[in-house]
Amino acid sequence: MQVNNTLANIRIVLCRPIYGGNIGSVCRAMANMGLSDLTIAGTGTFDMQDARKMACWATDILDSCRQVATLAEALADCALVFGATARMGLYRQHTRSPREWAPSILASAQNGNVALLFGPEDDGLSNDDLAQCHHLIRIPSTTVYPSLNLAQAVMICAYELYTAGGTFEPLPEKSPLAASGMKERMFAMWEQVLLEIGFMEPDKAQHMMLGIRRVFARGALSEDDVRILMGIARQTRWYADHQRAKPQANDDSH
Amino acid sequence: MQVNNTLANIRIVLCRPIYGGNIGSVCRAMANMGLSDLTIAGTGTFDMQDARKMACWATDILDSCRQVATLAEALADCALVFGATARMGLYRQHTRSPREWAPSILASAQNGNVALLFGPEDDGLSNDDLAQCHHLIRIPSTTVYPSLNLAQAVMICAYELYTAGGTFEPLPEKSPLAASGMKERMFAMWEQVLLEIGFMEPDKAQHMMLGIRRVFARGALSEDDVRILMGIARQTRWYADHQRAKPQANDDSH
Repeated sequence: MQVNNTLANIRIVLCRPIYGGNIGSVCRAMANMGLSDLTIAGTGTFDMQDARKMACWATDILDSCRQVATLAEALADCALVFGATARMGLYRQHTRSPREWAPSILASAQNGNVALLFGPEDDGLSNDDLAQCHHLIRIPSTTVYPSLNLAQAVMICAYELYTAGGTFEPLPEKSPLAASGMKERMFAMWEQVLLEIGFMEPDKAQHMMLGIRRVFARGALSEDDVRILMGIARQTRWYADHQRAKPQANDDSH
Repeated sequence: MQVNNTLANIRIVLCRPIYGGNIGSVCRAMANMGLSDLTIAGTGTFDMQDARKMACWATDILDSCRQVATLAEALADCALVFGATARMGLYRQHTRSPREWAPSILASAQNGNVALLFGPEDDGLSNDDLAQCHHLIRIPSTTVYPSLNLAQAVMICAYELYTAGGTFEPLPEKSPLAASGMKERMFAMWEQVLLEIGFMEPDKAQHMMLGIRRVFARGALSEDDVRILMGIARQTRWYADHQRAKPQANDDSH
């Protein structure tokens, strides 16, 4: 609840965006990551059909998006303003990555509005835009191709904020990792049945079992995994015993 | 160099993608994050013009993209296969986030090809697709709107791999943070000049300076910042002295 309120205080501001498709993609990315306050600064028009298409189910954010003429209007009630820039140069030295900034952004957003500013697709934020920012964000990228698509840039910042907020909890493993004792019981069952079905000779058993142990050591086995492997051993043994008892048991095939 | 080779061994596999625009956006995201091996599994056709438009400058990845009929062909030379899924259910319990998986993916990619699998835009990976995956990735997102755009999902995975690779180094601050002693000298200069120009009375100076200290404590001041503030104090003092000495010194104005 605390974090949801915090995310509600974070405003995505698009400066003079050009393509409706990107604006729609921004809406969807925001919805994925729990943001909802979108403001467009600039008097330009954009293709609303493209925007709606790319917003997918996140049309509520598109519908409640505010469009204002100037950046100053978009930022008027913001305590702190972060600008995203890929370019270097004047005013652009003191950049940090979105992961580095995320904790301070969330902390500031607990007590007031914080804006994240993104420039137009062709040129990014101008020096005039940057002069209205308190801090600069630079998204890690290769030097050969540092220019991210607008909606991708918003996504990475939103994702870092959502992740730093700590509300996401990966689903717990349904089954805990198997303890050594349980695995040993399973290996014992396999050794017994592999001998029984003639997969290995008694004098080679130790060597073969080392190989089999190595195979199963490659992944971390959960208790469920081990139970499945035990079940295979048990069933194999049952089948082997059964076959030996009734070698012609065709009446069992249905 | 090591990491670049590692990233070269990571293959993005799109299963039966529908929209050319998304495929182009995937190319751009890959270029941003240092990936280059793109394979499309499925016999479908897509709008190449949309793809080229969204790929922007990353058309080399689009041009060298391999299209194969089946997923098995796409994965034939891969040692390890990761599937990205937002849905829960059968086979989908053991998911981890891209940040959790990144170190193992990079480690495996040092010795062989690793594939990251992404399903079609409408339905995601099918159970048959998932059966070909060794591990599952789930991107953190809100529960109300967990479905990411295909290219956004690829971007977040690629971004986590690029970041975990550690090749990106944020530009160092040009100027280190100012030490306390330097800041104290600056405050002393300001106190003196603010008294001199009559901004504050001597009996209120201590109180006023507390307020001024608070203002500058809001941000971490670098040595350059402090030098600028010292310069303002020095210049103010010079101007105050100068004005007092030559109140009509209009000849100094050019």
